[in-house]
Amino acid sequence: MNGAESLVRTLIAGGVDTCFANPGTSEMHFVAALDRVAGMRCVLGLFEGVVSGAADGYGRMADKPAATLLHLGPGLGNALANLHNACKAATPIINIVGDHATRHRQYDAPLTSDVEGVARPMSAWVKTSDDARSVARDGAEAVTVSLTGAGQVATLILPADTAWGESDGPAAVQSPPSKRRVSEEMVAEARAALLSDEPTLLLIGGRALRSAPLEMASRIAQATGAKLLAPTSNARIERGAGRVALDRIFYPVQQALDQLSGFRRVVLIGARNPVAFFAYPGKPSLVLPPGCTVHVLAEPEDDIAEALERLADAVGAGDRKPVLQPLSRPELPRGAISLETIGALIGALLPENAIVVDESINSGGFIYPSTAGAPAHDWLQLTGGSIGIGLPLATGAAVACPDRRVVALQADGSGMYTLQALWTHARENLNITTVIFSNRAYASLETELKNVGAMNPGQIALDMLDLSRPDLNWVKLAEGMGVEAARAESLESLSCLFSESLKRPGPFLIEVPC
Amino acid sequence: MNGAESLVRTLIAGGVDTCFANPGTSEMHFVAALDRVAGMRCVLGLFEGVVSGAADGYGRMADKPAATLLHLGPGLGNALANLHNACKAATPIINIVGDHATRHRQYDAPLTSDVEGVARPMSAWVKTSDDARSVARDGAEAVTVSLTGAGQVATLILPADTAWGESDGPAAVQSPPSKRRVSEEMVAEARAALLSDEPTLLLIGGRALRSAPLEMASRIAQATGAKLLAPTSNARIERGAGRVALDRIFYPVQQALDQLSGFRRVVLIGARNPVAFFAYPGKPSLVLPPGCTVHVLAEPEDDIAEALERLADAVGAGDRKPVLQPLSRPELPRGAISLETIGALIGALLPENAIVVDESINSGGFIYPSTAGAPAHDWLQLTGGSIGIGLPLATGAAVACPDRRVVALQADGSGMYTLQALWTHARENLNITTVIFSNRAYASLETELKNVGAMNPGQIALDMLDLSRPDLNWVKLAEGMGVEAARAESLESLSCLFSESLKRPGPFLIEVPC
Repeated sequence: MNGAESLVRTLIAGGVDTCFANPGTSEMHFVAALDRVAGMRCVLGLFEGVVSGAADGYGRMADKPAATLLHLGPGLGNALANLHNACKAATPIINIVGDHATRHRQYDAPLTSDVEGVARPMSAWVKTSDDARSVARDGAEAVTVSLTGAGQVATLILPADTAWGESDGPAAVQSPPSKRRVSEEMVAEARAALLSDEPTLLLIGGRALRSAPLEMASRIAQATGAKLLAPTSNARIERGAGRVALDRIFYPVQQALDQLSGFRRVVLIGARNPVAFFAYPGKPSLVLPPGCTVHVLAEPEDDIAEALERLADAVGAGDRKPVLQPLSRPELPRGAISLETIGALIGALLPENAIVVDESINSGGFIYPSTAGAPAHDWLQLTGGSIGIGLPLATGAAVACPDRRVVALQADGSGMYTLQALWTHARENLNITTVIFSNRAYASLETELKNVGAMNPGQIALDMLDLSRPDLNWVKLAEGMGVEAARAESLESLSCLFSESLKRPGPFLIEVPC
Repeated sequence: MNGAESLVRTLIAGGVDTCFANPGTSEMHFVAALDRVAGMRCVLGLFEGVVSGAADGYGRMADKPAATLLHLGPGLGNALANLHNACKAATPIINIVGDHATRHRQYDAPLTSDVEGVARPMSAWVKTSDDARSVARDGAEAVTVSLTGAGQVATLILPADTAWGESDGPAAVQSPPSKRRVSEEMVAEARAALLSDEPTLLLIGGRALRSAPLEMASRIAQATGAKLLAPTSNARIERGAGRVALDRIFYPVQQALDQLSGFRRVVLIGARNPVAFFAYPGKPSLVLPPGCTVHVLAEPEDDIAEALERLADAVGAGDRKPVLQPLSRPELPRGAISLETIGALIGALLPENAIVVDESINSGGFIYPSTAGAPAHDWLQLTGGSIGIGLPLATGAAVACPDRRVVALQADGSGMYTLQALWTHARENLNITTVIFSNRAYASLETELKNVGAMNPGQIALDMLDLSRPDLNWVKLAEGMGVEAARAESLESLSCLFSESLKRPGPFLIEVPC
């Protein structure tokens, strides 16, 4: 068998059975191999940012890597923005990137570029296969690397001849190294902080945001009086009725400073020392108050669940019960459409076991609190600040969890970066309800312009933040890619469209003026 | 004045008066400065690949750089694919990329990344400004670098505090170094090749594809019996009636090998030793025949016009006339829509002084020959093989040349990568007629799958090349972004829509089944 087939067999045997692809000539042998080996689902995206964002959504929900299939340096370049988000989310992903055949790379062909150089900023591991006999072994290593630590992006570059040349067959995938067990000293230090008389925060991130570790953290908080918070941006939170309720650090830097001002100690559990999204003149970068002592219980890549159990024992939380959120929805709102009433409406109607993909940016502030008591669901966020993840992330989450409804909360400006994902929603008939918040502006930048001290903006500056003239029509954009869509001009219409979309399979898009 | 304003003033004084922008928080001071300084046209793109492709189109037509304004590593990442094309086109571009404030970069903020690492593969020059007082000087250097040699991509990274801090005011832009004068030996060697009895090719690329150097090349060919050809992919060819007619090396490798098989010598004039787009099993990478001697008259970055004059003198072409293409259009075709009749139709109707942006890929083979005798026009191509350049390139060309009609010949699969450009067509009311070749497939890959020897593709492989299920509706996509559009179901309808679009200002899109 050729190198491409040896790689496909290696990936499938290693548990990698989903590939998000936007292939070109140099990847044709990989594509052809997919028909000779059963077991790989291949999902086409019409732009590479869709592919990488979908792989991120898949990895966050499946807790295992998808492969991407990308075309040389420029194709990988198009995938970088969402790979950046995946790196920050610690999502396992295996990029398979075709390159020119080894002998061809010495010439200045049009598509020749430094593929490794493009990969490096958004990959924990980069390797170019030397020959067809190395491809399977390199692919097996990529799988292992992707599952190492908290989860990583691994990029394997395949010169075309390594795909078409004769291989030695598939290679076995090794298990990733065990997660690091945190030291006795770290547990003791966290215990001492929690048993001090000072106001203490448990800041919980990464894989600790699943329901089991959150329950353990809640028991620790019950035993010690500590407060729980999550970082501003998180890959995935398990929340809703029957789970631990959890606020997040606010995005606006002044609100975050105020929120955290009372704490004297913080214990980091899979989270990092919280930093403001951006720097602003006259504001600090780190948002914990001066003099607040930071204790690390567990880094994101450590064995967090085990560390939490030991800490619970150490603080005597063994017999405490976690505080769980009761089922409690807002009433279906009436009146005019506003960000607040939309938030309440989604809280009232969010279906059981939903996956919420939140790239609502400035429009979504009311939705997270209004869904706190909705039936249990997962909440996926923009982790790396690179907008344009929502529609792709929803794609991958829906592929990973075909029996669940994905609700994509999508700001219009951000949605435009990767709107091609809607076509994949349609082709794969994915169960995704997309709500487009149509404010026709980069609304967050209107605030940021003032926050950074750029006062009295003129018309040229304001034009750069204004998405009207012409207005985007998301119903037409969706229909142009085969997704049924409608515009909700009232709360009643939004309620009806949202509810209807949940009852039938496949994608639906609702544009809401706001 | 702050660093941002010192940079804007430096750019404008240096002749850089157009900025294609997709800004974020860290670029807000630059945006705000645009209103305090007259003379910079700022054009918003809703995706960074639109911005970089537009800067490429602008630079190719204006022969000077536009600036881009991009948001940190991921924003630059989204721009890379079309920057790759710009590098291969030797287009001068100045990327202005915001980064976190210097003090903020040490923390793992969500948008923190290795911006220089992202820039390097697609930039000839990368610099991060140290402080607000360096920004103007760095910006001036970027302008000079962009205009050095054949034209280059320069990337200037501005930590936010360098934009908001106090500067020393604008800096003067130095002229780029003079282009290298080719040596007497190179002229003598080219002369000897041309005066030999062996079949000789003048392969002409880069800036030699403008009408004046092409006329000089034609006179040389007249005097020596050499044949003229252009490379497969070119940034800009001045062609049509009253200009030198020029065929290009064929894209399919076997056709290129056949086309070049008779030559024993080739003189490179602003072109490189021709290489096949991809490597194929059993085919050579370089397409000149074995034993053909390659002589370099001028590298792309050399003073090509001066070299051609000296060569013309050396071979005694002083009194020769160039062979110029007479005005000669095909008749307006009748009958069924086909790639051939569409080609003839565009040849029959192409307006005087048009700028043709050709990303028609597999659908456009008939158009280049059918427009050979159309009124004088410019022909812009995909230079780096990274698809998704057409609609952005048309944007930039139309901004650079507001009095000319841009005709964008756009394959549907490629168009989807950067369809957001249509919104900018509408906002700026650009004079662009876009023809979408709607074959609903990555048709080139259907051929390539066989060419690389991946035989008997199965359904999974074929699905990766198939853009139907669902069908894209480009009329809706265009209307969703404010561009008037229609689908031509017959040649008569296409003729009518195409002609009408030329008569009125602003953009229009025609979807043609093919």
